[in-house]
Amino acid sequence: TGLVHVKNPHLDLLEEDVLYHLDLGTKTHNLPAMFGDIKFVCVGGSPNRMRAFAQFMHKELGLAGNGEDLADICAGTDRYVMYRAGPVLSISHGMGIPSISIMLHELIKLLHHAKCRDVTITRIGTSGGLGVEAGSVVITDTAVDTSFRPRFEQAVLDDVVVRSTELDKDLAEELLACSKETPDFPTLIGHTMCTSDFYEGQGRLDGALCSFSSEKKLEYLKRAYDAGVRNIEMESTAFAALCGLCGLRGE
Amino acid sequence: TGLVHVKNPHLDLLEEDVLYHLDLGTKTHNLPAMFGDIKFVCVGGSPNRMRAFAQFMHKELGLAGNGEDLADICAGTDRYVMYRAGPVLSISHGMGIPSISIMLHELIKLLHHAKCRDVTITRIGTSGGLGVEAGSVVITDTAVDTSFRPRFEQAVLDDVVVRSTELDKDLAEELLACSKETPDFPTLIGHTMCTSDFYEGQGRLDGALCSFSSEKKLEYLKRAYDAGVRNIEMESTAFAALCGLCGLRGE
Repeated sequence: TGLVHVKNPHLDLLEEDVLYHLDLGTKTHNLPAMFGDIKFVCVGGSPNRMRAFAQFMHKELGLAGNGEDLADICAGTDRYVMYRAGPVLSISHGMGIPSISIMLHELIKLLHHAKCRDVTITRIGTSGGLGVEAGSVVITDTAVDTSFRPRFEQAVLDDVVVRSTELDKDLAEELLACSKETPDFPTLIGHTMCTSDFYEGQGRLDGALCSFSSEKKLEYLKRAYDAGVRNIEMESTAFAALCGLCGLRGE
Repeated sequence: TGLVHVKNPHLDLLEEDVLYHLDLGTKTHNLPAMFGDIKFVCVGGSPNRMRAFAQFMHKELGLAGNGEDLADICAGTDRYVMYRAGPVLSISHGMGIPSISIMLHELIKLLHHAKCRDVTITRIGTSGGLGVEAGSVVITDTAVDTSFRPRFEQAVLDDVVVRSTELDKDLAEELLACSKETPDFPTLIGHTMCTSDFYEGQGRLDGALCSFSSEKKLEYLKRAYDAGVRNIEMESTAFAALCGLCGLRGE
């Protein structure tokens, strides 16, 4: 049917669903009217960058009106920003898995309540490249954890459940095909490694704490490269797991 | 000596230390002149709230000038905000452990480069209360993980190291004593549980995914209460572990 799935039997029993961190809700907003025709969602960490991306999309799509002056749909909260340009939503998610998870839970419910169909979601963001030319675009085929496994461990109460982090391979190939038309930067498909820490977790030598040598760092990054990792960031496994479970075509 | 410790032998070898996510650095800014007299750092998730807190401190301390018009010291980045009011820094950290960790690594280096002494750091924020009156202030004695253990598991490359999450007990008692002077809201000392997820990790029944029953949720929260947990949030274990290791008196 192309609809977004929520997997929560309790939701139907709610009189009102408040999307706290987006400052939206089923009683306060007409979500189908506001969002029913959304087909693409692009998410990224930085609020300013996601505004700039919406402005860019507004211009690219040749939409009427002043693209410089888009309204933040989540203006009532400072947790995230959300802009739309035609069928495209552009949303910030902050840094790290917990931050993107809160946004994705509420976004998935938003798309569900709005009865959106056939939505494609893409995370775009800066990442540390591994053995690739600076400025390359890495299209993720599979998100992996810090042991290079395609899995995300989700705490559910005090249990841990393991979820798959496969992304849509056809979408990855489509995006790679698009890149042929814009040969300004090298583009490749590879694994993306997701960490929960920017300094100690990514082998940086310039954090407040660092207990490993430069050699140990390089040995680890070499092993990551050999396992197929081409870039490192901090949200991809949770993004892949949540999108996969909820029927969002994600990349 | 009261100085903040960094525990990273590589730092001394750097010609320049760039605090990327704060948009500050040792070559671009005179950190001792800007921050050498800082004695208190208050951190919280929301940028707007941390601006309001700095404005409040400006007024409370009777400082000269317009407290409504404080400049964001990190205006060059949209990752975090930072304001100062006299000897008090007020900084946002976003949501979740990865986000606060990035800020704390760079804050600790900032305080180190600025040669600050005897700094007290406090995280203030909203949290879900557990068996306490709504509106209560919970002062954390120990941050615990989702299994109620006083520990934080930090990924270092592909190893995991376990760190203590004890906070400064004397500071907790001092803060409790202060609360006697402002009897507007109930204040108590208890354990704070830190989760990496707002929905499935905290027993909420209204996320996009929920696989547990209301009974199972209540049984878990009851066990948490019995273990001494009085509130739940998403940053405390990383905060306690980093502050403890770096000699920051934290609460």
